[in-house]
Amino acid sequence: MQTSFARRFDGVSGSAIRDIFKLLGQPGMISFAGGNPAASALEDTLLADIARDVLLRDGKRILQYGATEGWVPLREQTARFLREDVGLEVSEADVLPTTGSTQAVDLLLKALVDEGDVVLVEGPSFLGSLQAMKLYGARLVEVPMDAEGLIPEKLEEAVRQYRPKLLYTVPNFQNPTGVTLSQARRKAVAALAARYNFFIAEDDPYRGLRYEGTHLPSIFSFDTEARVVYLTSFSKLISPGLRVGAAVTRDPALMRKLTVGKQSTDCHTANLTQAMVAEYLARDLLPGHVQKICARYREQLTHMVDGFAGFPDGVEMVRPQGGLFVWAALPDGMDALALLQQAVQRGVAYVPGTHFYANGGHLNTLRLNFSNSEIDQIDRGMRILGELVKGGQ
Amino acid sequence: MQTSFARRFDGVSGSAIRDIFKLLGQPGMISFAGGNPAASALEDTLLADIARDVLLRDGKRILQYGATEGWVPLREQTARFLREDVGLEVSEADVLPTTGSTQAVDLLLKALVDEGDVVLVEGPSFLGSLQAMKLYGARLVEVPMDAEGLIPEKLEEAVRQYRPKLLYTVPNFQNPTGVTLSQARRKAVAALAARYNFFIAEDDPYRGLRYEGTHLPSIFSFDTEARVVYLTSFSKLISPGLRVGAAVTRDPALMRKLTVGKQSTDCHTANLTQAMVAEYLARDLLPGHVQKICARYREQLTHMVDGFAGFPDGVEMVRPQGGLFVWAALPDGMDALALLQQAVQRGVAYVPGTHFYANGGHLNTLRLNFSNSEIDQIDRGMRILGELVKGGQ
Repeated sequence: MQTSFARRFDGVSGSAIRDIFKLLGQPGMISFAGGNPAASALEDTLLADIARDVLLRDGKRILQYGATEGWVPLREQTARFLREDVGLEVSEADVLPTTGSTQAVDLLLKALVDEGDVVLVEGPSFLGSLQAMKLYGARLVEVPMDAEGLIPEKLEEAVRQYRPKLLYTVPNFQNPTGVTLSQARRKAVAALAARYNFFIAEDDPYRGLRYEGTHLPSIFSFDTEARVVYLTSFSKLISPGLRVGAAVTRDPALMRKLTVGKQSTDCHTANLTQAMVAEYLARDLLPGHVQKICARYREQLTHMVDGFAGFPDGVEMVRPQGGLFVWAALPDGMDALALLQQAVQRGVAYVPGTHFYANGGHLNTLRLNFSNSEIDQIDRGMRILGELVKGGQ
Repeated sequence: MQTSFARRFDGVSGSAIRDIFKLLGQPGMISFAGGNPAASALEDTLLADIARDVLLRDGKRILQYGATEGWVPLREQTARFLREDVGLEVSEADVLPTTGSTQAVDLLLKALVDEGDVVLVEGPSFLGSLQAMKLYGARLVEVPMDAEGLIPEKLEEAVRQYRPKLLYTVPNFQNPTGVTLSQARRKAVAALAARYNFFIAEDDPYRGLRYEGTHLPSIFSFDTEARVVYLTSFSKLISPGLRVGAAVTRDPALMRKLTVGKQSTDCHTANLTQAMVAEYLARDLLPGHVQKICARYREQLTHMVDGFAGFPDGVEMVRPQGGLFVWAALPDGMDALALLQQAVQRGVAYVPGTHFYANGGHLNTLRLNFSNSEIDQIDRGMRILGELVKGGQ
């Protein structure tokens, strides 16, 4: 007899890029898909020592059940990081450690979204978050972006028309476009949330990875009504495999919902990985490490951007100021989804841009990641892609 | 302006025992609340070495993004554990590692339950799972138990009346009652699931903690239709703080839903804690460790059971064959919820049984945990409780 699954899975088949990822194991494949940190950025021997140190010092507590609210030293260190590095006025009580910022998005949706509620998303947006929203039965409405990010006038139009529960935005070096929301617009966006009474998920995992220009204040910092929930992650800065991120809110009622939701979801994030990140931060290792990885990522980005010189006219690309991705639009009529088959046959993978749009379309776009490839792979991969695009015209 | 949270939180305020837990930090408090392993059962120096070893050997992979499907060595070792120790005919493809079995319950509900769907639960049942069900909008229907666990005739009545999506059962040393489902009933329950086409969540975290009698075959082993999802956990056997459990199903379509749900929930469980448990299992450390902790828990259980000699007539208690809990019913008319205030004032905490019933009531019942108290604390705490019960009559 037919099994009946929950309706929330109707039309959700899993991340579209998973099938691409399965190809990446092929020997010699150059992968511009994914968003993995460079292997060289992962400090295995240092973190092996830190793991041992925290377990020898605090093992009985680390191995026991922990609080859903999180490992206290991590809450303190994350609050310090947010105050000193990000410029948020927060205390540890505002910080809920999560199992990666993936879980922070999930818990926020769980706290806020009933089936049919509207969530505004950037067009395009991070596909993992889009999938999470679909699983909560959210109605996704795209807000257009330009080179300065979300367009506030378009946002206000959408807010008035759809009365959303939530706006989801990645303000720095957005995944997938690499675009950064301008300072004036951050202020405008925060003001709209206060005026029209919706929440903002400010998902900011790439902030530390700035290769040029200066850091901008967060949307959170312009928020006077506790409407902005700031989502941070140590995945891009320390290690994604440890799964440590956080949701940050100054609204105690929302914090309670997030915490109750988390209690039923995983009880608490593993104490060990929380304690390791807390120790890493307490030892003040982050600034030096981020400086080191940024130097390398900047060079990789430059090679990728330079690689576009071999592409035909009509290809649009804007060099991002940071992050892990370069976004490109091929000439109208070209199909990056179809081109991917040929690219993979020639040993290069990327993610077609259409997967990042809540409603699909935009077949001529694609996302390229540079952090997880060697310089010579970037040069070679871009040459191959350039030839394919030329041939496909 | 009023904030509007998702409706799923209506009537869910967080685990009822959280407030009790906050009292447990008071100096000298004897806690029979909670379900924590003994501190002596947590092998901090061994696990410190294992953490370091796996990171030095496999650190670049452990610290990178992992697969939602889980760390391959853990899937293999868990499948081996299930085959050799539990007697399940499964391969690694049937195993989805989760962030504790809490997450396994959550993902199963996400895969199956639409708002208003009926989930059958034992009366009483584990309150954490009850809360998770409420957050999915499930309608909870209690099935009565006796000393052999769920009563199949009552189950069939409920199935025919309510057409449930799912039955949730803890077959071994149930939380909270300590009751074990008899072998004949396991077979009957599996047959009902096949006949009436509902799923069974067989939540089995305590199986290894058997202090007398012989292991019984799982419900899963009587299931010919892939209707039983077996949930296991290493929280009680190795460490709860590592948050490593698993959902086990032979239904590939369900496995896909669980995996897609997990992808949006936390991307994957921390690779490090998965790798540590895999290494622990690969080194064949589990059997010796379980033998050791069982010897200690058996002694603690005996002291707690003996402590009932000081209770007045009319108090009902059945010695469990394993697990972490002793369940007691005070004489009718007594209120274990009200008595808790006095108990806490005298330095003893427990969990009132009413919290474990989907519909409340049963105010005369209470759950006592013995694993997390020293022998002299158990003796003293039981003496105090006995006096209070006598005085309350």
